Amino acid sequence: MDEPKSTTNETVRLEAFSDNVFAVAITLLIFQIRVPPHEPPGGLRVALFDLWPSYLAFLATFMTIGVMWLNHHRLFSLVARKDDGLIVLNLLLLLVTTWLPFPTALLAEHLRGPHHDQQAAGVVYSASLFAMAVAFNVLWRYAVSIDAVGEHANVSGISRQYAIGPLIYAVLVGIAFFSADWCLVISALYALYFALPPSLWRRRRR
Amino acid sequence: MDEPKSTTNETVRLEAFSDNVFAVAITLLIFQIRVPPHEPPGGLRVALFDLWPSYLAFLATFMTIGVMWLNHHRLFSLVARKDDGLIVLNLLLLLVTTWLPFPTALLAEHLRGPHHDQQAAGVVYSASLFAMAVAFNVLWRYAVSIDAVGEHANVSGISRQYAIGPLIYAVLVGIAFFSADWCLVISALYALYFALPPSLWRRRRR
Amino acid sequence: MDEPKSTTNETVRLEAFSDNVFAVAITLLIFQIRVPPHEPPGGLRVALFDLWPSYLAFLATFMTIGVMWLNHHRLFSLVARKDDGLIVLNLLLLLVTTWLPFPTALLAEHLRGPHHDQQAAGVVYSASLFAMAVAFNVLWRYAVSIDAVGEHANVSGISRQYAIGPLIYAVLVGIAFFSADWCLVISALYALYFALPPSLWRRRRR
Amino acid sequence: MDEPKSTTNETVRLEAFSDNVFAVAITLLIFQIRVPPHEPPGGLRVALFDLWPSYLAFLATFMTIGVMWLNHHRLFSLVARKDDGLIVLNLLLLLVTTWLPFPTALLAEHLRGPHHDQQAAGVVYSASLFAMAVAFNVLWRYAVSIDAVGEHANVSGISRQYAIGPLIYAVLVGIAFFSADWCLVISALYALYFALPPSLWRRRRR
Repeated sequence: MDEPKSTTNETVRLEAFSDNVFAVAITLLIFQIRVPPHEPPGGLRVALFDLWPSYLAFLATFMTIGVMWLNHHRLFSLVARKDDGLIVLNLLLLLVTTWLPFPTALLAEHLRGPHHDQQAAGVVYSASLFAMAVAFNVLWRYAVSIDAVGEHANVSGISRQYAIGPLIYAVLVGIAFFSADWCLVISALYALYFALPPSLWRRRRR
Repeated sequence: MDEPKSTTNETVRLEAFSDNVFAVAITLLIFQIRVPPHEPPGGLRVALFDLWPSYLAFLATFMTIGVMWLNHHRLFSLVARKDDGLIVLNLLLLLVTTWLPFPTALLAEHLRGPHHDQQAAGVVYSASLFAMAVAFNVLWRYAVSIDAVGEHANVSGISRQYAIGPLIYAVLVGIAFFSADWCLVISALYALYFALPPSLWRRRRR
Repeated sequence: MDEPKSTTNETVRLEAFSDNVFAVAITLLIFQIRVPPHEPPGGLRVALFDLWPSYLAFLATFMTIGVMWLNHHRLFSLVARKDDGLIVLNLLLLLVTTWLPFPTALLAEHLRGPHHDQQAAGVVYSASLFAMAVAFNVLWRYAVSIDAVGEHANVSGISRQYAIGPLIYAVLVGIAFFSADWCLVISALYALYFALPPSLWRRRRR
Repeated sequence: MDEPKSTTNETVRLEAFSDNVFAVAITLLIFQIRVPPHEPPGGLRVALFDLWPSYLAFLATFMTIGVMWLNHHRLFSLVARKDDGLIVLNLLLLLVTTWLPFPTALLAEHLRGPHHDQQAAGVVYSASLFAMAVAFNVLWRYAVSIDAVGEHANVSGISRQYAIGPLIYAVLVGIAFFSADWCLVISALYALYFALPPSLWRRRRR
């Protein structure tokens, strides 16, 4: 009775708002990479190569947010209704998502710095991804708990699949103490892995 | 007869545009936090801790805009039609919302500065939140005045609830003269309070 | 036959894309205002007052883009179908719109500079608004020319009303040679005038 | 069975998300152009003229992204359903699109620099456009391969038309070794050519 207009598509505006946030966050990442200023003649090529930590960080975070959007999309394709708790938990996920450009730029900036700074940047980056994965899991489990998820056979299977994210990213926090480079590479590969398998699996099923 | 296409969903494009603005504003907040440059070896950790006023300001404004979006969402779930006045008053609310990243960055920058500067930044921040709450109330009361709000029993109850915002933020302006820190903390707590209760209350009702 | 899916709402995605651009442009304006750095103790208040050209420019351009969005909204409420020409002319309008943050920041920066620089900034600002108004008129007339506008009695009346914009802004370019301040004030007042009357007029009609 | 809600409009949310990304990327381009600071009195006019590489780069990339959005729009007007592969390939196209503001700013910055730097910037710019065109073609061919494209007579004609893009941009990479200016001019003209003909052709058809 609180929302008389949107009976059939309860979650439409929530999804649209979230999509907006994902889209803006993912598009703004590139603005963390500074264009190299005028170098000694012919020096631009070297300066562009030296920016590789920025490219790698851009790529890893783009893929991570992209996959998060994809998962968010799938999650809400299963969620038939919303309540205030779901909205607030969704905002929590968006909070962590909009935060991501900061650790991304941080890691890009310090990936070639002294070891202690690499460590600090890597831990902040990994911990941010961990927080995002946790927020996503909380959102999903809340949706299940209020019976917002349709009569879909595989709820527990999905829950198990989603639970892998926080585990991986928790391990990543540990890895950050040894190598910030590996943090970026692993998070990029993990996003790639998450993006690809269902598609391969689905095609085989048909 | 002016808008022949959108008979059933008069306010859809208005809401979509507003959502866009809220989403962009909320996502851009993070870009006000500068990544610490190369420090003396091992100095990044300290530099990151010293940024806490920026994190706090980011969090407080994110939550405030998030709750404003939520309220905007609820408001328009009750509004069945629009006229030009409603559109213009909605633009006024968006004006204040897009302004918010500036006082947020201002307060983050000067929260550890001399007392007079803290005061100035705190007053600008609090006054901006006050303006936002006033704009929201004006929008709501205008919608009621043109009978755009559906046959919903509790119009006066909602009006009373919404009227609390300007009161709280007016008090916050006063507090800013004494402590800018408390401005941030109180605005964050107030947003949190606004976000949570309906959900708790609703669940109990079921 | 080229767009089989969207028979009833041909212009929906075009409008949504335009709304996105308007929303991002309007929200990003604030990021052209730099937060004053640490001043001599107590100096922030003065520094904040000295930023008034930036606030004024922010306000004037926000209102101008806001009214342009409103007009775009009204225009497309009358346009029942689209073709490639309409899409390209719409992109032209968006091109000028996304350009606006630059002259806005330019004018804010140089409004207190030497007279010749004020002039240059004022002319660029006014000419940009002129280009926007022209692009809007071209879009409207094209829509009329391809019979995309529904059986609406008042096409010629709307055409006349829209034609005022380029006239006003052409005069504004002339004014810019004498006073950049008046450019901002007049463009803000003109946007305000455009936003308000229909609403007042409409209410009286009822 | 995975997405029970969106039976009729399978690709709606995918298109909306893509539109968001295109809209944000196209609107943010202007923020790569820095407002000239206070110059010697009367010097602003010269400084504004000297920014022409930035204006040209802004224009060329705006048009390129605009045409890409237009093509994306047309492509999805023919695509009736999606699978995970299509979503991931669409993300790949968005990845390249969000990357574009970087080479744009790079080319604007170094278009008047020493020849070797012009070359480097021009090659990065052209190669980025090439990557975008390739990503678009891969997306289209994948959509055809999963039979997501409706019973449209002219699939092979469209495929041929789309294949021109990568060819043109491959040539552009070669041109970049000789002249970065021509890269910008040609890419702008190519976008213009792509935008206009169908409209002219269509009108003649009627």
